[in-house]
Amino acid sequence: MRVGVLTGGGDCPGLNAVIRAIVRKGVPEYGYNFLGFRDGWRGPLEAATMPLDIPAVRGLLPRGGTILGSSRTNPFAIEDGVQRIKRNLQNLGVDALIAIGGEDTLGVATQLHDAGVNVVGVPKTIDNDLSGTDYTFGFDTAVGIATEAIDRLHTTAESHHRVLIVEVMGRHAGWIALHSGMAGGANIILIPEVPFDIDQVCRYVEARFRLHYAPIIVVSEGAKPKEGEESLHSGEKDAFGHVRLGGVGEYLAREIESRTGKEARTTVLGHVQRGGTPSSRDRWLATRFGLHAIDAVAEEKWGMMTALRGTDIVMVPLAEATKELKVVDPALYAEAEVFFG
Amino acid sequence: MRVGVLTGGGDCPGLNAVIRAIVRKGVPEYGYNFLGFRDGWRGPLEAATMPLDIPAVRGLLPRGGTILGSSRTNPFAIEDGVQRIKRNLQNLGVDALIAIGGEDTLGVATQLHDAGVNVVGVPKTIDNDLSGTDYTFGFDTAVGIATEAIDRLHTTAESHHRVLIVEVMGRHAGWIALHSGMAGGANIILIPEVPFDIDQVCRYVEARFRLHYAPIIVVSEGAKPKEGEESLHSGEKDAFGHVRLGGVGEYLAREIESRTGKEARTTVLGHVQRGGTPSSRDRWLATRFGLHAIDAVAEEKWGMMTALRGTDIVMVPLAEATKELKVVDPALYAEAEVFFG
Amino acid sequence: MRVGVLTGGGDCPGLNAVIRAIVRKGVPEYGYNFLGFRDGWRGPLEAATMPLDIPAVRGLLPRGGTILGSSRTNPFAIEDGVQRIKRNLQNLGVDALIAIGGEDTLGVATQLHDAGVNVVGVPKTIDNDLSGTDYTFGFDTAVGIATEAIDRLHTTAESHHRVLIVEVMGRHAGWIALHSGMAGGANIILIPEVPFDIDQVCRYVEARFRLHYAPIIVVSEGAKPKEGEESLHSGEKDAFGHVRLGGVGEYLAREIESRTGKEARTTVLGHVQRGGTPSSRDRWLATRFGLHAIDAVAEEKWGMMTALRGTDIVMVPLAEATKELKVVDPALYAEAEVFFG
Amino acid sequence: MRVGVLTGGGDCPGLNAVIRAIVRKGVPEYGYNFLGFRDGWRGPLEAATMPLDIPAVRGLLPRGGTILGSSRTNPFAIEDGVQRIKRNLQNLGVDALIAIGGEDTLGVATQLHDAGVNVVGVPKTIDNDLSGTDYTFGFDTAVGIATEAIDRLHTTAESHHRVLIVEVMGRHAGWIALHSGMAGGANIILIPEVPFDIDQVCRYVEARFRLHYAPIIVVSEGAKPKEGEESLHSGEKDAFGHVRLGGVGEYLAREIESRTGKEARTTVLGHVQRGGTPSSRDRWLATRFGLHAIDAVAEEKWGMMTALRGTDIVMVPLAEATKELKVVDPALYAEAEVFFG
Repeated sequence: MRVGVLTGGGDCPGLNAVIRAIVRKGVPEYGYNFLGFRDGWRGPLEAATMPLDIPAVRGLLPRGGTILGSSRTNPFAIEDGVQRIKRNLQNLGVDALIAIGGEDTLGVATQLHDAGVNVVGVPKTIDNDLSGTDYTFGFDTAVGIATEAIDRLHTTAESHHRVLIVEVMGRHAGWIALHSGMAGGANIILIPEVPFDIDQVCRYVEARFRLHYAPIIVVSEGAKPKEGEESLHSGEKDAFGHVRLGGVGEYLAREIESRTGKEARTTVLGHVQRGGTPSSRDRWLATRFGLHAIDAVAEEKWGMMTALRGTDIVMVPLAEATKELKVVDPALYAEAEVFFG
Repeated sequence: MRVGVLTGGGDCPGLNAVIRAIVRKGVPEYGYNFLGFRDGWRGPLEAATMPLDIPAVRGLLPRGGTILGSSRTNPFAIEDGVQRIKRNLQNLGVDALIAIGGEDTLGVATQLHDAGVNVVGVPKTIDNDLSGTDYTFGFDTAVGIATEAIDRLHTTAESHHRVLIVEVMGRHAGWIALHSGMAGGANIILIPEVPFDIDQVCRYVEARFRLHYAPIIVVSEGAKPKEGEESLHSGEKDAFGHVRLGGVGEYLAREIESRTGKEARTTVLGHVQRGGTPSSRDRWLATRFGLHAIDAVAEEKWGMMTALRGTDIVMVPLAEATKELKVVDPALYAEAEVFFG
Repeated sequence: MRVGVLTGGGDCPGLNAVIRAIVRKGVPEYGYNFLGFRDGWRGPLEAATMPLDIPAVRGLLPRGGTILGSSRTNPFAIEDGVQRIKRNLQNLGVDALIAIGGEDTLGVATQLHDAGVNVVGVPKTIDNDLSGTDYTFGFDTAVGIATEAIDRLHTTAESHHRVLIVEVMGRHAGWIALHSGMAGGANIILIPEVPFDIDQVCRYVEARFRLHYAPIIVVSEGAKPKEGEESLHSGEKDAFGHVRLGGVGEYLAREIESRTGKEARTTVLGHVQRGGTPSSRDRWLATRFGLHAIDAVAEEKWGMMTALRGTDIVMVPLAEATKELKVVDPALYAEAEVFFG
Repeated sequence: MRVGVLTGGGDCPGLNAVIRAIVRKGVPEYGYNFLGFRDGWRGPLEAATMPLDIPAVRGLLPRGGTILGSSRTNPFAIEDGVQRIKRNLQNLGVDALIAIGGEDTLGVATQLHDAGVNVVGVPKTIDNDLSGTDYTFGFDTAVGIATEAIDRLHTTAESHHRVLIVEVMGRHAGWIALHSGMAGGANIILIPEVPFDIDQVCRYVEARFRLHYAPIIVVSEGAKPKEGEESLHSGEKDAFGHVRLGGVGEYLAREIESRTGKEARTTVLGHVQRGGTPSSRDRWLATRFGLHAIDAVAEEKWGMMTALRGTDIVMVPLAEATKELKVVDPALYAEAEVFFG
């Protein structure tokens, strides 16, 4: 039996750990051989492959990134895409495919499964916004990086008299902001699920200063004010088609400065959050996802993906992951609000 | 309403974060005032207290240790212990008690609840061996520290030709060894639940050397060989009543050297694993335990303790935590064995 | 003998370690007592003090920030400033002053020394741009933080096809960019001392992409293009008096995107670089500066400051530190250029 | 021109960074080609080589260990060793050799230079005990690891009532213990240069407990009591030829427990200190050593080695590094003693 493996979508610590676990178990335990597909769905679409055996996965466990490369190629957006994939898999003698990726990658996997391809999925999202699993790998690492940044700002906040803003990842879901803000002891946490009132933010800022401490604000890149600009995140084009300078972090700095008269400084963590070595927890989760994915291939659980439920790895239908975005529950956000101001 | 708080047993990153969350929510949300009891059950037993208000908990979130101190005092081992505690609580006007601790501390809490004291528990064990909850805070931090040590040994293992042994915590349960060994890519993991065969260990060592890599062994301090010495862990007295030099890590080094002729070196992490700032995940868990513990007081859920189930914090009976040690399931250990040798 | 201590200027890891070492040696060794002045020169100017004894400095070694607070108050910009300071010192019975700070703080110290005040200085600058000393504490910590960010970007750079930009501190000197860029393996390093040619930057970017790696650019906040806008750093006002959105990092992203057609993403580390616990090296340096500063008081070396020369701490005239900015030598920058592209 | 490169002696973070810098500058700047010799002097002795070009050094900067391997092979201990090396170098067309290593490796390099081989050296010792250079790479990393361990013990020391002992590297020189002990705020530092009085150690321990803090002791593996056992370090054989269990850390624990009645716990960091990614400072130093070593080859500075003097890299005679061990100056140790007890 020959099994193809691919990784799609944005970078995420733990991708390599999944690949390693698949191969380290699949070769000796099931006698499978493996083929790596390059750059997500571009791999099977263009028969772009690389060897994937035990020597190829040595040393991968702690390494960020993905040796297979990634892309956002969507075979369903390409004429004959599905046929080409099926033909290539047949020509390459690939009997089953393990697709490691987020909403888009798993969406394609679901459709390919419906089209008769033997697919097993492994969910991946640094933002933790996929349904069907308690957590995905990469998220814990990102939260750790953001928390360490907040920790460092605390001492500066105590010595000086500035508002300190940290813009973290999360276009549609505020998980990273919420977890790192709670873990770092932020004074205000702003997430996409709950549009913010800039006046309320300024009231928290002023309350904090009255305690002789400087406020620290953690904000998801996708957070938006209640009224006004539709979206402020980095990379967005403005009305003239120019790339907008600065995202919501800069917006907050400007607004708070002009409304409270206090200086504000912004840290934008950016891609730092999705790179580097995975945390021990993410390595544990990624490794177990890999082990269970290859078991699922052996058990022919096509159309299913690995998922974490409590401390167990279970298999759930691929469609479950992509049916709706997992956003922050208002009740959970309310837990954090007790620390605001 | 006045609420007493105490911490018992060994040190564990996150204790202070629990205390902070209890106070930060209890004061503004419920209007409670708080009294800190010093050094575990010694506090209520001897009316040893300290003030516990919002200023007292500032800056506690990232700090290891516990501002309340700890001890292993057991009021049930002391004449009139329970009566003295009840009398002291009454004299101090304490209506309810939050006990943060492990098996012993929560065991006392259960008995005090049976004796009519209003107690809510928060489970704590760095070893992750308490039942009733998916995880406890402190464990993720300890695993992270052990994993980082293993990471560092890998480069040395590649450049040299020695067996490298890491002895980690875990007298009765191998959770830290298993998680850090999986996350760090150890070649052999030895845990108390599965007595090891020293000849099999040496076969793995030799197999690893044949691949031109040096083996890394992670061993719980409580791991034991199948036959022979009853227990090898540090601090144990030998037949002459002397403190034994070296624990199971040193034992392995000596045995492997004499059986394989390869040099072996041991790292004993010791208390380093239970100190320092909690990981972001442990801060999240500890903070949520604190928030739900004070909610439980408000809801008069006496005799219950906070527990993690998946992503939810729930309340379970105190007795559930202490009824049996949560040890590593053989099926989970078998998952790791695919990476041995 | 009573010795006053103050800290001025921006935050810098190691300030507390200096304060601790002064007190820990000064009390038992010389029998001095100490007075802490609050918020830099505001302290002696307004007789704003706090107690400073051995219990007050417990636990300070690893803590970022400064327990004394800081400010940019300049007594020479205030009428009667010097007289008020001399009067307050006399009234408080302060015989000597240890001033810990950067260019501004030490400039004031020099003038006060000329006016007859017994002053010893300790140089502090996170940017490493003070003359008279090989290094200052805080710099190694900042470089470490920036290097870790670059490390994390490398894996993302390999998996994706974007230009990754890191904006680090350094308004006038490129030390942090140069050291972290060399240590992190950046492909381009831009510093204030060498205005950059945006076309050359784009040529390096394209050369790097031809090797199938994404380029990582480290840029000092004070770096400027050869021609065009005078200054691009964050916080700068634009022609309309508005706070400019985005600094040189955003400028580079926009220019590179429009010239090469490649996506670019910017990380702005900001105040994260000046907060948190000092590195082991900075603690060593700060501690030794503190020990030698109090020795200098005992030896009445007024008008002198501590300095690092090789592995030795020596005393140099205060004026030496402030006479000129220590910028990056072109020959040293040329060493780094071998790694560009 | 063809240049051979080898690494000898124990593992040390930064070795790969030196190799990378040599090649990254030597190829484009001087048009050299390179040959890697495997496992220290075994490489030239047995003509054991590996390719060493720009692709071979990609990604090496942050990686611990050495891609060239290492050994303690001494060609002068082998009949005809020098002749074989000279013949092999000639056969392989190697015109010059860069030897990266410690006392032994550089001692051989010195003798080979005297025998007419074109050698340039790069000093390496994690223990920082080589003369002729302010610091060597790897040392800062080791100090950082030991300091982090001490940091973590502090919270445990506060919560509990145990003596905490950390055994660090340093058989003949106490640099790691001294730097990490100062940076970590240890209460007692014991180094090989100053034999300790166990009664004085116990007096410090008891003084510390009287302040209601638990003492933290940092001890070099080569530290010895004033009288009694000659050497206690790990791996030593006892009178019966058995490997001794436990080193000086265990010895201290046993002695302190029996003399003071207080429990003591030992952490033995071992090889963890010499593995893993180099600190930013060590990468900077290692990279500059590599750049200057290849410049020295171009300038035919045979028999010289790179050295750090202040902030400059200079060339010094190879013999200078090995003429005497650089030990801790009593005056420097005395600086630390102010913090004891």
